[in-house]
Amino acid sequence: ADRVRIEDARQVVAMDEAPADAMRKKKDSSMRVAINLVKDGSAGACISAGNTGALMATSRFVLKTVPGIDRPAIMAVLPTKSGRAHMLDLGANSDCSADQLFQFGIMGSVVVQGIEEIDNPRVALLNIGEEAMKGSDTIRAAAAMLAATRINYVGFIEADSIAESAADVIVCDGFSGNIALKAMEGTAHLVKHFLLEEFRSGLYGRLAGLIAWPVLRSLSRRVDPRRYNGASLVGLNGIVIKSHGGADIVAFQQAIHTAMIEVDKDVPGRIRTIMAEQGDREVLEA
Amino acid sequence: ADRVRIEDARQVVAMDEAPADAMRKKKDSSMRVAINLVKDGSAGACISAGNTGALMATSRFVLKTVPGIDRPAIMAVLPTKSGRAHMLDLGANSDCSADQLFQFGIMGSVVVQGIEEIDNPRVALLNIGEEAMKGSDTIRAAAAMLAATRINYVGFIEADSIAESAADVIVCDGFSGNIALKAMEGTAHLVKHFLLEEFRSGLYGRLAGLIAWPVLRSLSRRVDPRRYNGASLVGLNGIVIKSHGGADIVAFQQAIHTAMIEVDKDVPGRIRTIMAEQGDREVLEA
Repeated sequence: ADRVRIEDARQVVAMDEAPADAMRKKKDSSMRVAINLVKDGSAGACISAGNTGALMATSRFVLKTVPGIDRPAIMAVLPTKSGRAHMLDLGANSDCSADQLFQFGIMGSVVVQGIEEIDNPRVALLNIGEEAMKGSDTIRAAAAMLAATRINYVGFIEADSIAESAADVIVCDGFSGNIALKAMEGTAHLVKHFLLEEFRSGLYGRLAGLIAWPVLRSLSRRVDPRRYNGASLVGLNGIVIKSHGGADIVAFQQAIHTAMIEVDKDVPGRIRTIMAEQGDREVLEA
Repeated sequence: ADRVRIEDARQVVAMDEAPADAMRKKKDSSMRVAINLVKDGSAGACISAGNTGALMATSRFVLKTVPGIDRPAIMAVLPTKSGRAHMLDLGANSDCSADQLFQFGIMGSVVVQGIEEIDNPRVALLNIGEEAMKGSDTIRAAAAMLAATRINYVGFIEADSIAESAADVIVCDGFSGNIALKAMEGTAHLVKHFLLEEFRSGLYGRLAGLIAWPVLRSLSRRVDPRRYNGASLVGLNGIVIKSHGGADIVAFQQAIHTAMIEVDKDVPGRIRTIMAEQGDREVLEA
């Protein structure tokens, strides 16, 4: 059988196009056609390096969210000292209610359980202190809701503890999450910039750089952002992966790999199951 | 004349003490005594490595804010590719109104103008996109207010552009600011951890590490957090500097140095002057 089938699509969603316009006017864009294929079951997942807002809006419109999920979240992987952490939301929802943060926690737990094969992923809420009194009313309400479930909720986490592997799933609103992610990217670039500058200054620096090159290359590979490419739009009735717009072959391969794992582990099915259980519990408790 | 005078103080503010308790019950703590000395003019500045919340609450109570400033902000220095950037608020105010963000922008501009001797510091608002439509209503209202002043407001900035030296002053609410700062610290530690791991693994890595040592030490000095110790509590009628709790001699010296510069440049006076001008303009416009 053919491993690749090409579908026709005549329109292009511009990177700066308003999501609502893309949704209404670009019904023959590759983005929309790909999401339609996920919807009708002929594709297992959609991977796009296009306009994030348009991808989110179109996915929500075509695939709809899983019952019990108000809005999908963007979830990505980050390197930590002893492995990886998953963080959501990274920008789809600037402002989040306690209910939404709670839903992100539940989704994060079940998705990471599936794709990382961890029994009880540690779920934490991103906050500006670890004490229970810290943060907004919203975040404290979400904490109380998560603590009342059977997921492994470990409390508040500060942004510097993410790299310390203090949690497997970090839950936050899209504004904070996006800022944390970008701050991390910026700092990694800055340190790399300083490192290269040092190894390029003076004869000794250059010689040391030559000798240290294989070691530096190995470090560079470990923090290579391409290895972490492919953010999941979780909470939809279907798998949609957002690749970085500037992705090269290595990075795009990683995004495809993420999609394959999510298909294999039936991520949307897992979310549907836990949300249905959650709903039953609420009905019983009410 | 004696360069050092020791003042008696019989109480200690615990690191986990509630700010309100510290303020009411610890009137003979070194923190309170030092702030009182700033108030009565016998000290030019107070430097504390103690409880941040208590320091903020006590400073506000004793020194009061400059007319036109609702609440003080915590401002600190960050390394960037081509120099330094100043960021506020870093945690004093979780939730900020547009007015407060506006006040932070005005204060940041005038303080950085003084201490960095830059004519028109570039002031930016931290956001999750650079387009004018991005972010909350609050942040967009603050942007409109800053754009209408004579300060050099350059628009929204994403967290990864801070390290790129895209602005001299970065304005944000205390929640986002604290998360950005901690995310940066965590990433710097993570990269350092990976770097040391690489230079400690295998014979080649160890040898390369030995040769690269002077270069790595020079890098380490450049990103040494001790060189950035000493956050200013700006907006008060007096100079109060918060040092990191775990500061050693080098770090504390840096905090003292920051205090000396602020005394030399009369930071509170500069803020009073620009806020008075701002007030006059509002009266004229009204």
